[in-house]
Amino acid sequence: MDNFSFHNPTRLHFGRGQAAQITQEIPVGARVLLTYGGGSIRKNGAYDQVMAALTGRHVVEFGGIEPNPEYETLLRAVALGRSEQVDWVLAVGGGSVFDGSKFIAAAIVLDPAIDPWQIIGNRTPLASALPLGGVLTLPATGSESNFAAVVTRRATQDKLSFKNPLVFPRFSVLDPAMTMTLPPRQIGNGVVDAFVHTVEQYLTVPNEARVQDRLAEGILQTLLEIGPRTLAQPDDYEARANMMWAANQALFGLVALGQVQDWATHAIGHELTALYGLDHAQTLAVTLPWLLTYRKTDKLAKLAQYGRRLWQLPGDDAAVAAVAIDRTIAFFETMGVPTRLSAYGIDALAAAEAVAGQLRRHGRNRLGEGGRLTPEDCAAIVRMAL
Amino acid sequence: MDNFSFHNPTRLHFGRGQAAQITQEIPVGARVLLTYGGGSIRKNGAYDQVMAALTGRHVVEFGGIEPNPEYETLLRAVALGRSEQVDWVLAVGGGSVFDGSKFIAAAIVLDPAIDPWQIIGNRTPLASALPLGGVLTLPATGSESNFAAVVTRRATQDKLSFKNPLVFPRFSVLDPAMTMTLPPRQIGNGVVDAFVHTVEQYLTVPNEARVQDRLAEGILQTLLEIGPRTLAQPDDYEARANMMWAANQALFGLVALGQVQDWATHAIGHELTALYGLDHAQTLAVTLPWLLTYRKTDKLAKLAQYGRRLWQLPGDDAAVAAVAIDRTIAFFETMGVPTRLSAYGIDALAAAEAVAGQLRRHGRNRLGEGGRLTPEDCAAIVRMAL
Repeated sequence: MDNFSFHNPTRLHFGRGQAAQITQEIPVGARVLLTYGGGSIRKNGAYDQVMAALTGRHVVEFGGIEPNPEYETLLRAVALGRSEQVDWVLAVGGGSVFDGSKFIAAAIVLDPAIDPWQIIGNRTPLASALPLGGVLTLPATGSESNFAAVVTRRATQDKLSFKNPLVFPRFSVLDPAMTMTLPPRQIGNGVVDAFVHTVEQYLTVPNEARVQDRLAEGILQTLLEIGPRTLAQPDDYEARANMMWAANQALFGLVALGQVQDWATHAIGHELTALYGLDHAQTLAVTLPWLLTYRKTDKLAKLAQYGRRLWQLPGDDAAVAAVAIDRTIAFFETMGVPTRLSAYGIDALAAAEAVAGQLRRHGRNRLGEGGRLTPEDCAAIVRMAL
Repeated sequence: MDNFSFHNPTRLHFGRGQAAQITQEIPVGARVLLTYGGGSIRKNGAYDQVMAALTGRHVVEFGGIEPNPEYETLLRAVALGRSEQVDWVLAVGGGSVFDGSKFIAAAIVLDPAIDPWQIIGNRTPLASALPLGGVLTLPATGSESNFAAVVTRRATQDKLSFKNPLVFPRFSVLDPAMTMTLPPRQIGNGVVDAFVHTVEQYLTVPNEARVQDRLAEGILQTLLEIGPRTLAQPDDYEARANMMWAANQALFGLVALGQVQDWATHAIGHELTALYGLDHAQTLAVTLPWLLTYRKTDKLAKLAQYGRRLWQLPGDDAAVAAVAIDRTIAFFETMGVPTRLSAYGIDALAAAEAVAGQLRRHGRNRLGEGGRLTPEDCAAIVRMAL
């Protein structure tokens, strides 16, 4: 087990009606920038519950944060927050709204002499950020309790991240009942997203991090168990609750501790979203199986452990690894998320070259565990997604 | 899954040499009350590493905090801390030193007009506490990252607890190498302690908390795997690291979320320690198997899950449950912690009456999940430990 430091100060309020806790979290008299996406929060009950809990606070609404939040949109929120002199940010939505709101919370108080784009890629230090809270309505990214954010700049086809403990949400509300109106595509995406987040931190090389391995396998097992059920029965509270908590725990931070991590699937996936506008989870589903196949030798021991513990597969390591990858593909397809680029009408050969070019441009020349994947390796992986 | 709120702000620094992080955690110029136990910190390297990291801070030492920390001892530390005007407390030791230091950190700044014993049992509200950090040298209780503490008052045979988020350690250092000089008895105790902590939060009734169940099972599985190994090979870093992390995660807070909890084994155990001075883990080992047997019907579904997932037992629920309890007993015995009172020279019949009397005196008349265990039930359980 490698050395590590761990700190996650976000307070989580989980369950039915927990939006009422906002009343304890945000002081009376606060000036709150309420950020959200396309307006689904008016359908799922979140808006009404949040506004009721915010009685006595001055609320400034900013809607329209898109999936893969765009820099230009976020800058408009920053301008609004500055002119309204807000002192809190409350994100209500999915990972994109949380990610965007982390940027907003940092940028509102940034020295106006500094270009806010410098926040992305951590190219400027942050002295402070506004306090941020959230209400999660789309379980998937874990953004509700971590300090990372991904922002997209459409003009330059950049989808890049920043990380800073200052933007940890002070609190997040996770109410499974608010997820019942989500369309099936977002549920399928959410399950795949949480699954791949876990795999990125687990399916690398053995490292004597036993509780972390078991936690990762427990999250994956739970997603296998409740994924199809929550897709089939949107009003099954317990299935949604388990999906929501599994997705949270996948990126809460504990799975990765002392482990060797990968994250090349995400690096490739981000470029596919920037290039073709695919949903984040779709890019993961078209990348992970082929990355695992491409690195089957490096990852053999962990693939075999995954196949035996998750899929109860018999046989030698190589046989278990091969079938485990097939089962993973089948699971993603069951969740309604295709694993081949052709299913999205994208030419894999052209995409492979484009992804490699983007990775080179972003200086991402050594990816995955051991830093062994070059942009050319990534192109080979994308070609396998034909 | 029941509604819950979760918050754990302790920063954890895990691994070899991580005591050096204290330099980042406690500001230069701080006046630090350094608390410890019987002096083992001079053998295991902790003292030297801590003092090196504290260069530039004023250090006031207070040693001699005993296992099951005694109120009278802690009051002397409070008096010293007040007279030396300390503004930090640094606990270096095991759960008893951490628990005692939580009390010290709260009591030093308590209004002098209030009797500090009122802190115990949460009978007085706390306005503040000194910042507390720690270096864990004995993995077992999870006290390094939670806000509970147990204090013993020998004169009145009371062993009672308090809980307050103000006494969450700001940080804790967990260096497995510091545990290599521990005597086998403390390793055996630590494994049993972590095991029972997990069972108290898990082995009750099914509640659709799937990731939490898997995490609990992962911690228990890890303890089964590395318990005998770490007992046999004290210098096996990876075994100690897994034990240390498993014990931490057992009481970090995540295992219990949304679950129905028990804790009757601890309630009975605390009385046995107060009455007979048994080690905490010894009291758990002589109680848990018989409590599980006594409540076999109420706990049948979860006992069967435990037996199948942890012990791979075949058969119907009742058969699996019975064998699972037998295996648990055998595991505790393997760890050098006997499961019968006679092994400690204690008469179970007299102990049963004494425990029931203590529980009544402390007003603990409805224990365990569902509040179904009366002091008379607890006496019956203790009698089974003959």
